[in-house]
Amino acid sequence: MSIKVDLILTNAVVLTMDTFLNQYDPGAVVVNGDSIVDVGPMEVIENKYSADKTFNCGGKVLMPGLVNTHTHIPMTLLRGLADDLRLEVWLLGYIMPVEREFVSKKFVELGTKIGCAEFIRTGVTCFNDMYYFEEVVAKTTAEIGLRAICSQTVLKFPTPDARSYEESLELTRGLIKRYKGHPLIIPAVAPHAAYTCPPEILKACTQLAIENDIPLHIHISETAEEVENMRKQEGMPVVPYIKKQDVFTAKTIAAHCVHIDEGEMRTLEHANVGVAHNPSSNLKLASGLAPVKRMLELGLKVGIGTDGSASNNDLDFFEEIRLATFIAKGSSGDPTAVPAVKTLEMATRIGAEALHIGDLTGSLEKGKRADLITVDLNTIHNSPKFRHDKNGIYSQIVYAGKSTDVVDVMVNGKWLMNDKIIPCLDESDLIEQSQVYARDIDVFIQKREKSVISKLIAIGGTVEEESFEIQAKVSIKNPLPVIEKIESGEIDLIRKRHYHEYDTYFNFEEKEDGRLRFREDHFIEPDGTVSQVRSRLTLIGPSREHQYPQKDVLLSRSRYLAPASQSLRFYIEYFKPSGETEVEKDRMRYLVNFKGEEFFINIDEMIKPKLGYFLEIKARTWSQIDAEEKSDLIVSLIEFLGVSAEEKITKDYLEIIEE
Amino acid sequence: MSIKVDLILTNAVVLTMDTFLNQYDPGAVVVNGDSIVDVGPMEVIENKYSADKTFNCGGKVLMPGLVNTHTHIPMTLLRGLADDLRLEVWLLGYIMPVEREFVSKKFVELGTKIGCAEFIRTGVTCFNDMYYFEEVVAKTTAEIGLRAICSQTVLKFPTPDARSYEESLELTRGLIKRYKGHPLIIPAVAPHAAYTCPPEILKACTQLAIENDIPLHIHISETAEEVENMRKQEGMPVVPYIKKQDVFTAKTIAAHCVHIDEGEMRTLEHANVGVAHNPSSNLKLASGLAPVKRMLELGLKVGIGTDGSASNNDLDFFEEIRLATFIAKGSSGDPTAVPAVKTLEMATRIGAEALHIGDLTGSLEKGKRADLITVDLNTIHNSPKFRHDKNGIYSQIVYAGKSTDVVDVMVNGKWLMNDKIIPCLDESDLIEQSQVYARDIDVFIQKREKSVISKLIAIGGTVEEESFEIQAKVSIKNPLPVIEKIESGEIDLIRKRHYHEYDTYFNFEEKEDGRLRFREDHFIEPDGTVSQVRSRLTLIGPSREHQYPQKDVLLSRSRYLAPASQSLRFYIEYFKPSGETEVEKDRMRYLVNFKGEEFFINIDEMIKPKLGYFLEIKARTWSQIDAEEKSDLIVSLIEFLGVSAEEKITKDYLEIIEE
Repeated sequence: MSIKVDLILTNAVVLTMDTFLNQYDPGAVVVNGDSIVDVGPMEVIENKYSADKTFNCGGKVLMPGLVNTHTHIPMTLLRGLADDLRLEVWLLGYIMPVEREFVSKKFVELGTKIGCAEFIRTGVTCFNDMYYFEEVVAKTTAEIGLRAICSQTVLKFPTPDARSYEESLELTRGLIKRYKGHPLIIPAVAPHAAYTCPPEILKACTQLAIENDIPLHIHISETAEEVENMRKQEGMPVVPYIKKQDVFTAKTIAAHCVHIDEGEMRTLEHANVGVAHNPSSNLKLASGLAPVKRMLELGLKVGIGTDGSASNNDLDFFEEIRLATFIAKGSSGDPTAVPAVKTLEMATRIGAEALHIGDLTGSLEKGKRADLITVDLNTIHNSPKFRHDKNGIYSQIVYAGKSTDVVDVMVNGKWLMNDKIIPCLDESDLIEQSQVYARDIDVFIQKREKSVISKLIAIGGTVEEESFEIQAKVSIKNPLPVIEKIESGEIDLIRKRHYHEYDTYFNFEEKEDGRLRFREDHFIEPDGTVSQVRSRLTLIGPSREHQYPQKDVLLSRSRYLAPASQSLRFYIEYFKPSGETEVEKDRMRYLVNFKGEEFFINIDEMIKPKLGYFLEIKARTWSQIDAEEKSDLIVSLIEFLGVSAEEKITKDYLEIIEE
Repeated sequence: MSIKVDLILTNAVVLTMDTFLNQYDPGAVVVNGDSIVDVGPMEVIENKYSADKTFNCGGKVLMPGLVNTHTHIPMTLLRGLADDLRLEVWLLGYIMPVEREFVSKKFVELGTKIGCAEFIRTGVTCFNDMYYFEEVVAKTTAEIGLRAICSQTVLKFPTPDARSYEESLELTRGLIKRYKGHPLIIPAVAPHAAYTCPPEILKACTQLAIENDIPLHIHISETAEEVENMRKQEGMPVVPYIKKQDVFTAKTIAAHCVHIDEGEMRTLEHANVGVAHNPSSNLKLASGLAPVKRMLELGLKVGIGTDGSASNNDLDFFEEIRLATFIAKGSSGDPTAVPAVKTLEMATRIGAEALHIGDLTGSLEKGKRADLITVDLNTIHNSPKFRHDKNGIYSQIVYAGKSTDVVDVMVNGKWLMNDKIIPCLDESDLIEQSQVYARDIDVFIQKREKSVISKLIAIGGTVEEESFEIQAKVSIKNPLPVIEKIESGEIDLIRKRHYHEYDTYFNFEEKEDGRLRFREDHFIEPDGTVSQVRSRLTLIGPSREHQYPQKDVLLSRSRYLAPASQSLRFYIEYFKPSGETEVEKDRMRYLVNFKGEEFFINIDEMIKPKLGYFLEIKARTWSQIDAEEKSDLIVSLIEFLGVSAEEKITKDYLEIIEE
């Protein structure tokens, strides 16, 4: 008596990708509902079961669906936006401005659909995402029928979906509420990286992940610069720093891990952190070659990821698999490193384990969900087929196989593609819709190409100075009592510097270009000599971000800095401003700690034009709550310095001059 | 009045890939006979010309066919034979034995057909080949209709098509005679590499190339080991060594150039040597990352190559193009290095220049042959398409495009593929035929897997000791007069050593397995003490290569050596020989220079079994002519040493023992 089941997939070369690497040729797989019931030799299976439906695989390879451990799926819509650029130029000059302008729920939905179409065609049945409006990614993916971990991004800057990190956490809570327990979607939280998330954000995200038993998805040590900065600022590399914030107590998935040492690898292994290795992205952005061979030797779960389409630029997973073994060999100088079979395990079972869902998917085993694909090896580029070695077939798929060899795709027991046709997606329509965005973005960029920021970027790397700055300014009659108060010992004076500053503001016809400031700083020693001269270009945005009218404190947008290696004359010729305004001032600059927070206090004597003395107080901030708190402290600090509150000014010097 | 022409390709995004990177969208290309007559905006072209045939490109990209600057096309039949192995294990353990057994004219023809099918599908219209039976490659390629430089391999070892390098040169002369002036085929000579071609071979090949004005194709500095060895042996890296042999006076194409320094790059540039960069192969074999960025900066013509399918394992040229830019970025740490547009130039115009056929192909320009392809960018993985930057389209093809986006291929004015159909090749039949070979090779390998050589390889890297060795042996009554003669000063004594050798020969049932020798060498100092003990395993082939009966000199086949790091007991257990024979002897070993050639003279006292004294003379050789000459010298040397010619023995000690 045979056992009744829903579906038998038969006449296949079955590669289970289980820990024993069992193969059955010819083999069969039994599916009931959303799950795999049995796997084995065709004859044994056909004798044991009878099915409502039989699917003849026609001698093709039948294997688990591929697991993409790191991506930003809606970024398919930014594919090819800008390439061959330095990371900061690419990110600050193109990706971020376009994201600010265009990323919406509709954008995310369309980008997710295009990404899902590409994933299905390349045999990916499960992916780990990180983006904005992640609930839209979840909804769209669930409707199409792919499996995904959907991680809501949290960081200290305002994002297209949140003005502060508190809002991002709120969005994550909504995502968890609506998708926890979903058959396809696993909600997750994604503190973007250590360099974009202060300890408070890392801790809040970790707590959320642990409370809800969801994965935490984070970028770790993608570039050498990231590690260097962390060493300078915190005296340790990135992994121990993140460990110190207790992040690894959550089910962590760490993307990249390009620049980590042996000790950091052991830390990650000990903490059961899954690693997402992104070969194309690491090469294209010249981030470096991840030590994949060593990570695997130490027992780390290393999966493969495409990263986003903006830095790849496609989602071809066969290319990523091949590159993963190529990079391991190329970086170790050992051609036996990470052989084909190991790479294919990374792309399937080990990848699922890295995502902490090894019980659900990643291999063809009884009890796991029916996430599977067929691959046609009967093509000219896959010929001939040697079978003297059991590993030959893995080698063939990895080294000669193409994405386009994937013929059928099933997720959670449901067919998403048969014979290369995806019934649930209208690809021509998606292509057309994507072109509407591309045209709008082209116009936006072309217009902006004439702008100051892009010209600034074009002549040298820019650095983002600070995310947000709050400031208050007060006109004062006599600076001496204020200076006495600062130096009285009543507050903690960290640093004191004396400058003479010569500013030239470039004005432009287009208001939205903002203003460009060329500043020459003369450092004045106590004996009055000039010890150092430094020149900088700073782009100042056209508008203020927010104003706290009750406190007369201004919240200003992040600004871009470039070291000015050329002369003022060069910049005037290069930027062709419609006019220039010159400002000269003498500045005493203090860094103080007031009630536990750091503030800069400037005592400025305006020399050109002759405007008298001003007191300026500034602080950096990274969230709305923090800005509110610091603006209260600024008000207290002004009072502490004995200056009358009525004199406050919420204007730039330039605005005062131009009045 | 419009000009009458054969064909207008119209309604295309024309990427000319000329030095100005002219683009026409919509554009058109005019073809008359085998050549391009005009290229320009669609409207201009359509007004100026009228054609018998018009081909509507339907908005697809129309660009020059891709140029593959280095391959071994018949090796498609060895695709996936063995992977993830060390170079020497892969080459000596798998590729070379299978080539010796299977490579024939029929093999080369089938391999070429499969390779051509793959090339057409990936948009390659011209390739630079290097293999055996190269005239078969030429004939098959010409029949299919692709453009190729067909380089006949020459090296010091016997090859599947030649017993000596003189035969290989003869084959090259035949190739030149039959193909010089052919519209599609350019004959060429390929001295394999500096480490496989002594100066005589390099010089003979160079002379042949110059006399016939044909390209010379050679491997240069593929691995660090190759460079190290050259430095040890010749006191210089590979490029200056090859230059010293005057090779660069020919139109040279240098494959790989992974490990070359700034000075070598300048030498290559100055000599107008074209470089073929092989990204996949260099990564897969862990050869290293070629300094592509720097080579291009110095003005070197660097093209892209797939290398052979045995080390790649496919001929997907889109993959190679993408990897070329990825490697340049990854190896330099500079994401702006070798941008997409530059890589596509390497894949087309610069590649053709590297092959010294820049006048014929590589760009869509008036006067060049009509070698062109169409590429469909209207696919999901190519969406969206940004056009705010003129270079965006190159970036799209390089970073997101796939081989399977190639739709039509024309070479020399003739269509080879339309709408992805290749009428002149029956691909299913080719796949089937390749499977016949695969099955035979599988059987050969499986049988051999049980053999001694493969077990030897499996336990550690083997080294090929020498190509060919000629030897003569003479039984002598008294060694003293011979020793006196050697040390008399009448001949040039280079080195003298005293050994005590303990050999254990492992015998096997299968005659073709040959014999394995475990040798323990004791180095004896003049005072009789043992200064060093060394153990080695040597596999001795079952049969002699050739015997010169008139001279009683034996020409023996190359042998494989492995350092014996384990005990004799281990090897007996591991190899399970059917029996062992022990031999013990005392050996005085002299290296002498006799009439300008080096010879080893051994004076052996056979202790176990007690067989008395023997004189042995050995020399390495690498060609038939050289072997003949040296065997004459051996006869003279024996006479010089005062030993009677009648006592000569053409047997191994083991054969003497077993008689």
